[in-house]
This record gives sequence, C-alpha cells and structure tokens, in this order.
Amino acid sequence: RQITILPGDGIGPEVTKEARRLLEDVAQAVGETWVLEEALIGGAAYDATGQPLPPETVEKCKASDAILLGAVGGPKWDHLPGDVRPEAGLLGIRKQLGVFANLRPIRTWPGLLLASPLKAELLNGVDMVIVRELTGGLYFGEPKQRLNGGDAVVDTLYYTRHEIERVVRQAFDIARGRRKKLTSVDKANVLESSRMWREIVQSIAGEYPDVTVEHLLVDSAAMQLIQRPNQFDVVVTENMFGDILSDEAAVLTGSIGMLPSASLGAEGPGLYEPVHGSAPDIAGSGVANPLASFLSVAMLLRHSLGLEDVAQHVEDAVLHVIESGHRTRDLAGQGKESVGTEQMSALVRSELQ
Amino acid sequence: RQITILPGDGIGPEVTKEARRLLEDVAQAVGETWVLEEALIGGAAYDATGQPLPPETVEKCKASDAILLGAVGGPKWDHLPGDVRPEAGLLGIRKQLGVFANLRPIRTWPGLLLASPLKAELLNGVDMVIVRELTGGLYFGEPKQRLNGGDAVVDTLYYTRHEIERVVRQAFDIARGRRKKLTSVDKANVLESSRMWREIVQSIAGEYPDVTVEHLLVDSAAMQLIQRPNQFDVVVTENMFGDILSDEAAVLTGSIGMLPSASLGAEGPGLYEPVHGSAPDIAGSGVANPLASFLSVAMLLRHSLGLEDVAQHVEDAVLHVIESGHRTRDLAGQGKESVGTEQMSALVRSELQ
Ligand SMILES: CC(C)[C@H](C(=O)O)[C@@H](O)C(=O)O
Ligand SMILES: CC(C)[C@H](C(=O)O)[C@@H](O)C(=O)O
Repeated sequence: RQITILPGDGIGPEVTKEARRLLEDVAQAVGETWVLEEALIGGAAYDATGQPLPPETVEKCKASDAILLGAVGGPKWDHLPGDVRPEAGLLGIRKQLGVFANLRPIRTWPGLLLASPLKAELLNGVDMVIVRELTGGLYFGEPKQRLNGGDAVVDTLYYTRHEIERVVRQAFDIARGRRKKLTSVDKANVLESSRMWREIVQSIAGEYPDVTVEHLLVDSAAMQLIQRPNQFDVVVTENMFGDILSDEAAVLTGSIGMLPSASLGAEGPGLYEPVHGSAPDIAGSGVANPLASFLSVAMLLRHSLGLEDVAQHVEDAVLHVIESGHRTRDLAGQGKESVGTEQMSALVRSELQ
Repeated sequence: RQITILPGDGIGPEVTKEARRLLEDVAQAVGETWVLEEALIGGAAYDATGQPLPPETVEKCKASDAILLGAVGGPKWDHLPGDVRPEAGLLGIRKQLGVFANLRPIRTWPGLLLASPLKAELLNGVDMVIVRELTGGLYFGEPKQRLNGGDAVVDTLYYTRHEIERVVRQAFDIARGRRKKLTSVDKANVLESSRMWREIVQSIAGEYPDVTVEHLLVDSAAMQLIQRPNQFDVVVTENMFGDILSDEAAVLTGSIGMLPSASLGAEGPGLYEPVHGSAPDIAGSGVANPLASFLSVAMLLRHSLGLEDVAQHVEDAVLHVIESGHRTRDLAGQGKESVGTEQMSALVRSELQ
C-alpha cells in the first residue's frame, strides 16, 4: 500500500510525524510493508518551489491509496496573492482528487465535557457526521473576479445536478449505517441553488425509505446546532455552509483538537486531515495535540484501506488514553498538568500493542 | 409622524398589536399625534391579494417616517413558488426601501442567563452589534436561475464597491459610538468578493484611527462567537454570512425572544423588526413574547424619530420588568410560571407611566 503524507505548515509536520509512527506500527502489526512518502503542500511548498501545490505532489497523491494531510497556512504567507497562498494548495488538491464529500464526525468525549462552552446537559449523546460538499459551490464557481476596473466584484455559487446528487447519496448511505436520520441544510427561501438542492434530496429520499429526512434553513441550523446538538445524526450541505457549520459544531464539544475528517471521491484515494488548522502560535513547541491526526488515520484505515477492525482499535486506544486522564495542553484547562505531542503519541501507540 | 405597521404572519399580528399600543402611549406622552397605519405583507398579503408585497404597501412604507414589521412566513405558504412566498415580500421591502444596513444588537440580560445554552461564565459582558449588509450579496445577485434545462443552477454573490463602502462606514460609525472595536468577517482565503471587502475595510480604517479593526474568517467567527462571545463589539459582514452568524449569536444569550433589529438606508424610513420569526406553532395562543417587538420600537424611536431619551425609557422599562421576575413562556423555563403577551405588554407600559 502506498500512503502519501503532506505535512504542510505550522503544527502540521509535528502531528503528521506522530501519525506516521502510528501508520508504521499498524503496518507492522498487520504484517505488511507500506510505502509512506512525503510531499510538499501549502506554505512549505511555496517556499521550496514557488507553488503551493507542485505537480509532483499531485502525481504522487493520485498514485497513492490514501493521503494524510497535516495543515496549511500561516501569517508568513498571508500577504501573497490568492492563487499562490497555502490555501490554494489545499483547494487545489481537493479539486484534483475529486474528493467531493467531506465527512466530519463530531462527538462528545466523556471526560472532555468541561472544556466545552456549552452546558453539560446539552452535550449528552452528541454524535453527528457533517457531510460537506467539497469541490463545488461558492468555492469554485466562475466568474470569481473583479468587474468594471475594480468597481464591482463577483463570486459564483454553481452546481450541476450530478454534483449535488452524488454528495446527497453519499450522505444517505452514511445515515443508513448510523441512526438513519438525515438533515439537509440549505437556504431554500432565498437561493435557487438551495431550491434545487432540496428537490434533489426529496427525490433521492424515495430510494432510502428507512432514512428520515428533514430540511433545515442554514440560519436555523446555526441556532439548533447550539440549542439541541444531540438532535443531529447526519447533516449534508453546500460547501460554504458546510465550512461555517462544521467549524461551529466543532467547538461545541470542546475538543476541536480531537476532530478528524475524511474527504472522499467516487473512486481514487481519500484525503484525511485533522479539522484543527496550522496553529502557528504553538508550532514547533511540542505541545500540539496529535489525536485529531490519529483519528484521521483511523478514518483512513477504515475508508481507504478497508481495515475497519484496526480503525476501531485506534479509536478505542485514543478513548482509553483520554479516559485514563492524559491531556494535551488544549484539553487540560488552564494551569492543569499536560503531556506533549510525542508523549501523547507514545501513550496511544503503546496502548495499541 | 407617520408610522406604518406590517403585522405579517404567525405571531406577527399579536406582537405588533402590543407594539402599537406602546407607540400610542409614547405619542401621548410626548404630546404628539402620530398616524399609525397598517399594511399587508407576507402570507397575509398573498392570501388577500395574490402578492406577498402589494404595491400599496410599498407606497405607504415609502411615505412613512418608519416601519414596524412583525414577522412573515409559515408552513401554509411553503409550497408556493419562490417569487410569491412570504419571504419574497420581506426581501422585496428591504430592497425597495434601500435599507442596506441591518443592525442586530445582542446582549445578555441579567436574570435570563439560565436560558442560555452557554456556560454562565462565558456570558459576562456580552454586548455586540452585528451589522449585516442587507440589500446585496448572495441574496440578490444575478444570474440566480436553473441552467441547461435544469441540469445545473447558479446563484451570484455580487457587490459594487459603493455597496460595500456604505455599510462598512455605517459599521465604523457605530463602533465609534461604542467600545471602538470593529470585527470584519469575510472568507478572504477563498472568495474574491471577500478580498475586495477586506481591502475596503482596510482603506476606510484610515478615516477612523480611533477604532481598532480586526479581520476574521467566517468559519473562525462561527467558532469564536461561541468560545468568546464577549470579545465582540461591532461585527460587519456580507448578507448571507450575516444571516447565519446573527442567528447563531442570537441564541447565545438564551433570549432570542428579546432581540430587536433595525434596517437603515442612506435616507428614507428605517424598517424595524424582531429577530424571532413568525413562530407558527404558538401563533394565536397569546403566549408570544412581545419584548423583541418593544425593543424594536425603541430602536425606531432612536434611529428614525430622534427620540433617544424615550428609546432609553422603553429599554429601561423592559429591563425592569425582567428584573422583577416576570417572564413570558419562552423565557420562563419548563414548568415555571409565565405571563402572556398582553400581560407582559401591560407590565412594561405601566412601568413607563
Ligand atoms: C483553509 C480553508 C481554505 C479551508 C476551507 O475553507 O475549506 C478550511 O477552512 C477548511 O474548512 O478545511
Ligand atoms: C426570512 C428570510 C428571508 C430572512 C433572511 O434570510 O434575511 C430571515 O432569515 C432574516 O434573517 O431576516
């Protein structure tokens, strides 16, 4: 098996270094030899090659079974023009790989409830997956440019029927394997694209009579995620709405340092990355939480390598280490004792033996 | 003075009925005769005339000093085509009046903290105004239609420089009169319109050296509104971002039934409305909270009639009634005693005597 690792910027290299160790342990445990290769992306790629997504990186990724990404971006590159900024590398690799479905599982972790901004009683049983459309919508539609010599500007929210159908079907499939409830989020009272989105969800719903479907307006979803987060099972939505709502949902449980994501296409390799960003303020100081990256490895094992059992083992090991009271700084709370990146990594990996 | 009241749908007629009483009391107190006239909007207008915004309503509004709206929409009209739905009436009157700046003050109310989904310690000192661009952006840009015989769809996020400048200036002016901090929210790492938005904020910042400016990405803003809501003073953002973030922020303090809004243009009448919607589930049962509507009247007195002192009196009266322990059902908490719409209205108005 071939896995490409894209360390990227900020804390990306630190957490992917530990995730690589985890992958090596797993390969050994299952008695296989995996090819783990690194490639450049983001600011690191720009510094080395002048481009945030060098062609070699794209080639290597396309030839892999799966890709594990750290994070991209940082103040160092904020002054660059849009098309060579680190984020352009991330958007580029998503588009090139055609990974149209971004899965973000969000759950409470027993023992971490104190870190949540929400009252504990609201967090009971929070366990949802946000399925965000990732390669279309407002992010990629054309035109996207200045007009009239800079006197106006336009971005475009464009979808083909096919683009909406495939991500909605993916979301229905996921719901079927869980609590069988799908919440489709749109702004059908204002956007034409949302009206089409809603129609498509309605018509595909016929193929999934076992799944309960509800439609929620995006503004109402933003409220209900906070008011009653445990009502959600699977949520599916447009790229930009998904960006906003998944970050909102990520902080509910107080464990953004624990949240993984998987980006999947119809075929080809999946792209796995922690939800937390590059966190330039703590980069290089050895305190970053590697667990979102570990849980991203678990998703990789499950979705790209078909190793469901091993994925489950990794998740159990993480849970167990947390339950034993070990905390990285982001989870510990002010003034409390904490472990560093390497130590947390070692704890989980030794748990796996 | 001429004030047009648009009761609309759901609980709209109930809360505007009490707001009208408040306006009558105020007119009498200041020794003036005000012309208070009603007009049709939303589902009520559709049922009576086949249009959610009859031309007579637009005319009457344009001839007024200010407009007080209840709410529009409800399941009864959800099956209608987009252009005659109640919401089209609301978007239409905003556009026709040119009220480009939607002001939504959000604050904690002492005594209502229990109703918040957030931990009490996070709510200390929450007091912000979200300034949402209201007549441009993704809501109104063209094209907004199906393409290729229904095989694709497009919505358009379009802004002229002028449209961005005027709302940003408005937000700076408001910040200057408050704690002098402005947070501009955009998605400059992805959208061209956001990059232009950010440039404009930067260049106007030069005219307001006394105001501190920060830029936040919309996904990050969605997180920080929950993690540290008291860091915000004035927030300015695009129409769709503002729709999502202001509803998210509205639930933080647990008092969505208390939140007013004002929509202002460069000239002409302002449009005032509660943030809560038409709440069809409780419509007609006499339990709706009239206080968001009362506080909208306070904003009307302040911004459109120049009666700052009276506005302050109304706000103080509301505060006092809440502090005395009176609660409508939405604020009371399950099983607790509560007062109805008319009784709450009477309490505040008698406090004003
Ligand atoms: C870095 C940025 C372009 C990216 C996005 O908006 O998609 C990030 O916020 C994310 O959610 O993965
Ligand atoms: C009813 C709807 C069209 C409206 C909007 O999206 O502007 C509402 O959500 C609001 O925020 O006033």
